Amino acid sequence: MISRRLPGSFESNALSREIAAFRAQGRPFLDLTSSNPTRCGLPYPEAGILAALAAPSVLAYDPDPRGAARAREAVAAWHGVDPGDLVLTASTSEAYGWLFKLLCDPGDQVLVPSPSYPLFHWLAALEGVEARQVPALRTDRWDLDFQALAGAATPRTRAVVVVNPNNPTGQFLSREEWPRLLAFCAERGLALLVDEVFADYALEPAPDHLPTALGEADPPCPLFVLSGLSKIAALPQIKLGWIVARGAPARACLEPLAFIADQYLSVSAPALAAAGPLLALAPGIQAGLRARLASNLAALDAELARRPSLSRARVEGGWSAILRVPALEPGEDLALRLLREAGVLIHPGHFFDLPGDGHLVCSLLPADFPEGIGRVGKSIAPAGGK
Amino acid sequence: MISRRLPGSFESNALSREIAAFRAQGRPFLDLTSSNPTRCGLPYPEAGILAALAAPSVLAYDPDPRGAARAREAVAAWHGVDPGDLVLTASTSEAYGWLFKLLCDPGDQVLVPSPSYPLFHWLAALEGVEARQVPALRTDRWDLDFQALAGAATPRTRAVVVVNPNNPTGQFLSREEWPRLLAFCAERGLALLVDEVFADYALEPAPDHLPTALGEADPPCPLFVLSGLSKIAALPQIKLGWIVARGAPARACLEPLAFIADQYLSVSAPALAAAGPLLALAPGIQAGLRARLASNLAALDAELARRPSLSRARVEGGWSAILRVPALEPGEDLALRLLREAGVLIHPGHFFDLPGDGHLVCSLLPADFPEGIGRVGKSIAPAGGK
Repeated sequence: MISRRLPGSFESNALSREIAAFRAQGRPFLDLTSSNPTRCGLPYPEAGILAALAAPSVLAYDPDPRGAARAREAVAAWHGVDPGDLVLTASTSEAYGWLFKLLCDPGDQVLVPSPSYPLFHWLAALEGVEARQVPALRTDRWDLDFQALAGAATPRTRAVVVVNPNNPTGQFLSREEWPRLLAFCAERGLALLVDEVFADYALEPAPDHLPTALGEADPPCPLFVLSGLSKIAALPQIKLGWIVARGAPARACLEPLAFIADQYLSVSAPALAAAGPLLALAPGIQAGLRARLASNLAALDAELARRPSLSRARVEGGWSAILRVPALEPGEDLALRLLREAGVLIHPGHFFDLPGDGHLVCSLLPADFPEGIGRVGKSIAPAGGK
Repeated sequence: MISRRLPGSFESNALSREIAAFRAQGRPFLDLTSSNPTRCGLPYPEAGILAALAAPSVLAYDPDPRGAARAREAVAAWHGVDPGDLVLTASTSEAYGWLFKLLCDPGDQVLVPSPSYPLFHWLAALEGVEARQVPALRTDRWDLDFQALAGAATPRTRAVVVVNPNNPTGQFLSREEWPRLLAFCAERGLALLVDEVFADYALEPAPDHLPTALGEADPPCPLFVLSGLSKIAALPQIKLGWIVARGAPARACLEPLAFIADQYLSVSAPALAAAGPLLALAPGIQAGLRARLASNLAALDAELARRPSLSRARVEGGWSAILRVPALEPGEDLALRLLREAGVLIHPGHFFDLPGDGHLVCSLLPADFPEGIGRVGKSIAPAGGK
């Protein structure tokens, strides 16, 4: 009765069961996996947000498949693009779904980066599409492995997905990779999807990083850039995402993309009405959030300075940090132990398909990050330990 | 580059081009196809709606895959069902998409009613699923044709879709059809999807009509009932729909359905926060809308009384009426002529797959319906004409 698009089993793993047990028993823990900015004690301009959502224009329905003109104009002004090149969606997930529907017949494939947030597999599978993971080069950075990309491409490959900066590695594309990636896609007739939801959060960018793919005015392949209010304004609950078609090959897909959008018309009027006012508030919201990221990163470094056996990867951008820890036990066992013994929830690296057992991934958002990371350090690498 | 899920061509038809030309030239016309209740001069409790959308709870993100508990409780109370049996969506279209993903592998089929609103074909095609139209019995009513349903079912059929009351026929399922439909699905291992978005708008229901499938507590097949604020509160712009799982077989699908929902999390916080308050306002909104439907239906009947060659089908429910007209020319030619000569836009029957050229379909919502239908009558059947 259930389709093969879905997982064969919905059994939770040991860590999920332990979290559920903590919650059922009302036992507190510090959650260093939380990436929900609205639950981290950050300052928000609350009155402005509420006023934006209750604009009188929400009283009328304006079913434009690409999204109400005024909302597109606001998003276009934010990015410096043409409103005619935009299609609004209820989320970046929906944007992926629509692009997979646009580009892929059932059974087709897309190439996705690894490590990454574990969403692409299911977003593709739900469209009958296979997301082929292509591991990054395992250097100190996670550079694109063009040999691996070429090896993973088949005649049924339709698109490459990259995330700039990637989650959780935080790594931006480099200026050296970018033209190679465009050429790779153009040579094989592939579309290129660039997810830039975290692009406004550069922390320690490399000198040669590509801040955004939107600067590419004339790509040789269809180029679609994805973003949304979820990260730009740190308002994931509003549900406004978008697709920017960049260049002529992508623009040629706008009519079919609008046809898809017209079947769903899923963006709510408050989100459309609020797009402009919320983008106007975004710089202030981002400032508060960036201050939090910086102070938590400093707390992390202070802790690492006390624990020589621990280190971290460079955080070029985004909301996460990757810790390198002694690989003395399976990552999930370590995460389970940290929850039980230190009362701290932290992601094992394999949640994001980071190779091996030597990585933990923590969110840099939580207000109680310094306390949490202190407990992690103490538990994994007792003072002076190697 | 474009997938085969999409139409092979996006060329518009002659009627669409004529509408575009009218709009481009700023030429006014009366739109008897408008089904957007927010653009028909209906009274709305505007302050209440705006206040509902700006509740302080929208400031925090509560990513529950099935939809925030308070919103589900409000919807459940409206329908008299259990909140645990609900999954909220951003639209009924999304609800169909998720159910097709849940039930159908690519290449599978669903059986859909005909005539109907022309949405199922594409909603299914976008999931790689085939929507097989099953024409109703061509009697005075559009009863389910169980022989045709049996003939259309194949080993790859996964579900039957019915709309109660149907759009645009307005016909409810009958109490005689209902157990036969359940048995049909149960015997073949099919799920049953009942779209009840128009269920609150019974105008001339038959004595044996089934007001709702929600009364079925123990169906022998998975039963999913779809509805939303779009019609219940006449607020299509809010973007809140839902799926009610009815009975044990459907309930067994709730975990996989929530898994799908968790990949998208597409309902906006204002819609979730407003669900309860807007449902509290719905009876008043419905009263105004029903008064409009009744007065426009009376205007239609007054016009038909003057035009013996015209008649209408019984409007059991919904927002539309079907006119029977002399089939003297192709339906699209007639619609084009009415737009050009009478300045009235009205749907030819074939837009909804009504058979033959003898039908027009009009919305009963527009404030200028009496004027528009007068022009239609005068143009098609000049006074006293047969």
